[in-house]
Amino acid sequence: MSPTLLTARSRRIQPFHVMALLARARELESQGRDIVHMEIGEPDFATAEPVRAAGQKALADGHTGYLPAAGLPALREAISDYYARRYSADVAPQRILITPGASGALVIALAMLADPGRHVLLPDPGYPCNRNFVELVDAIPQAVRVGADTDYQLTAALAEAACDERTAAMLVGSPGNPTGTLASAADLQGLAALADQRGIGLIVDEIYHGLHYGDDPAQAVVHAPNAIVVNSFSKYFGMTGWRLGWMVVPAGWTEVAEKLMQNLFINASTPAQYAAMACFTPEAEAIFESRREAFRERRDFLLPALRELGFHIPGNPAGAFYLYADVSALCDDSEDLGRRLLEEAGVAVTPGLDFERTAPERHLRFAYTTDQTRLAEAVERIEQYLRSTGR
Amino acid sequence: MSPTLLTARSRRIQPFHVMALLARARELESQGRDIVHMEIGEPDFATAEPVRAAGQKALADGHTGYLPAAGLPALREAISDYYARRYSADVAPQRILITPGASGALVIALAMLADPGRHVLLPDPGYPCNRNFVELVDAIPQAVRVGADTDYQLTAALAEAACDERTAAMLVGSPGNPTGTLASAADLQGLAALADQRGIGLIVDEIYHGLHYGDDPAQAVVHAPNAIVVNSFSKYFGMTGWRLGWMVVPAGWTEVAEKLMQNLFINASTPAQYAAMACFTPEAEAIFESRREAFRERRDFLLPALRELGFHIPGNPAGAFYLYADVSALCDDSEDLGRRLLEEAGVAVTPGLDFERTAPERHLRFAYTTDQTRLAEAVERIEQYLRSTGR
Repeated sequence: MSPTLLTARSRRIQPFHVMALLARARELESQGRDIVHMEIGEPDFATAEPVRAAGQKALADGHTGYLPAAGLPALREAISDYYARRYSADVAPQRILITPGASGALVIALAMLADPGRHVLLPDPGYPCNRNFVELVDAIPQAVRVGADTDYQLTAALAEAACDERTAAMLVGSPGNPTGTLASAADLQGLAALADQRGIGLIVDEIYHGLHYGDDPAQAVVHAPNAIVVNSFSKYFGMTGWRLGWMVVPAGWTEVAEKLMQNLFINASTPAQYAAMACFTPEAEAIFESRREAFRERRDFLLPALRELGFHIPGNPAGAFYLYADVSALCDDSEDLGRRLLEEAGVAVTPGLDFERTAPERHLRFAYTTDQTRLAEAVERIEQYLRSTGR
Repeated sequence: MSPTLLTARSRRIQPFHVMALLARARELESQGRDIVHMEIGEPDFATAEPVRAAGQKALADGHTGYLPAAGLPALREAISDYYARRYSADVAPQRILITPGASGALVIALAMLADPGRHVLLPDPGYPCNRNFVELVDAIPQAVRVGADTDYQLTAALAEAACDERTAAMLVGSPGNPTGTLASAADLQGLAALADQRGIGLIVDEIYHGLHYGDDPAQAVVHAPNAIVVNSFSKYFGMTGWRLGWMVVPAGWTEVAEKLMQNLFINASTPAQYAAMACFTPEAEAIFESRREAFRERRDFLLPALRELGFHIPGNPAGAFYLYADVSALCDDSEDLGRRLLEEAGVAVTPGLDFERTAPERHLRFAYTTDQTRLAEAVERIEQYLRSTGR
């Protein structure tokens, strides 16, 4: 088949620019260079032992067959209990579907909400894949500039100004990637009210849910009960490679979401669902909380250290494991700075090009997914590099 | 959110009709009734012990993180070796991508080939989900009637007659579901030539690949090297609930398929990919072959037994684990017959409504995914039921 057969959609979907940088980092490592990886959106912890043990037991017990499309009933209940216990939020198990990662949940959410040619509002900067789920269903991503003034969150005022006749939905993230900032209760309430008022959909991507370093953040299930909430076992629960997530749908939407799950995915991984049951044991929760504490310490080290070096990090990056820095005081071109930091300082970070359309050349994302010692090493190397260039 | 927000697409995608029947079967079982399940498309074997053991080891070793989007390099190589060793077929590992089930591969294949409003030809009868992957990307499924004269396979002549200016691709299955029939080398060559000639895509769904009970079937990778071939670890390799599959793309298409994998799925399950490595050991292969022999014996029992009872099963169901029967000599309405077989004979089968648009009321699918003793029990019960109704 000739590549001319390729759909317009597959031409519009962009690869991650960081992949080229990652390949170069690996090349340098193969030449013996030491690289501090701050470009990777994956916790540096393997899945917690109790969860791995539960997975092993599921396999030993022969839990390898298909499951109901909406997921293992006991897992849907465990998540409902978790919302009640941890956040005093009332989410019926019937509204919870277990999905193949947050990715699978986003496919289903967009398939339900966005017909071709309709608009979906997304904050800019934002997670690059999210716009590509919109592209998959041939809807049109509409980047809405968000800045430090709203802590990089889409507010109802910003969304309303960007809405038009073709708007079908809004897709926001909290904690956000690349900024690590949180939506407030007012933000969520405002978006929920706007969704109702305009008759459009609201999707809240909470895949970093659980990874917050101040007060408990506002919960979408509480402040936007009409939203589709997308969540994941990848980040807080440390199950990245298992590809397991969940979605909460508004009351009355379960049947259609289930029908789509059944047709498009059959079910999320069975061994992973059994393993995830162990995420809600006191033993596993203690591990997750200690890891959260480690992320908090890293952030508390890295944020002031980078600010001191001249990286402008506005707002309150109180969740996920990212800092998003404005580097315009240091250079004209963040991609070039990223390349130099890799080549000359041995520190890999992600350029803004992967996250935004407005001012990509002014931004770099730092992930604190590596330990404190390595973060300190990175800061020292960056400082030396900046000094060597006279900045 | 109001259900009026639902996309046209999500209204077009139909649930499996068999689900209502399955729910009723479970209800009868909870009342103490014994039901023989011949409606389920899942082998009655758990994942083979060596594969489960490899999964357990992967978890013990901490293989729980993200993998490259295209899959574990060693697994892509193992599949390439398997094609060479088992079928003397030359498939470079670079053309193989590991996917979240055949489902994930079908999402990517259709995302690459079918823009909104374009037509995709599918054989009718066929697997119901396949048309829904077409719906996901807002292309239009075009059912092409196939019958016993072509062994229920789409031929180039049938496809050509159905092609028009809007045709973007053809999607065929071999071994087919619900018929269990195989595409011949000539069928595949004809479709491949037609695809080239008309500049359209060809997708061959081989998820029952490996489950054939006569001579080795014609391989799409050999006779249609320009096709996207979709395969699975679910059926022959017995890994249903793990959700692992693969796709072979034409030379030059890897990069775009990889970009879509990266954005839409990140990667297929990491523990599953490590476990699947054990599928290619002599120990596991011996188990798969003995299971294939068991399926062959079941087919060799069930096919003549059903024919003797008046079920018309034309063609040569030489693969998968299905028999597709024309029941017009026995009743006017296969759905009603299916209901009666469940209620009165305690045998669950799938009505044609799930598989075809042309003559659903004339067809039933029998799955031989239960053991020989239970199949014999089912045949006896069906015979008694038919006798009791005077047929």
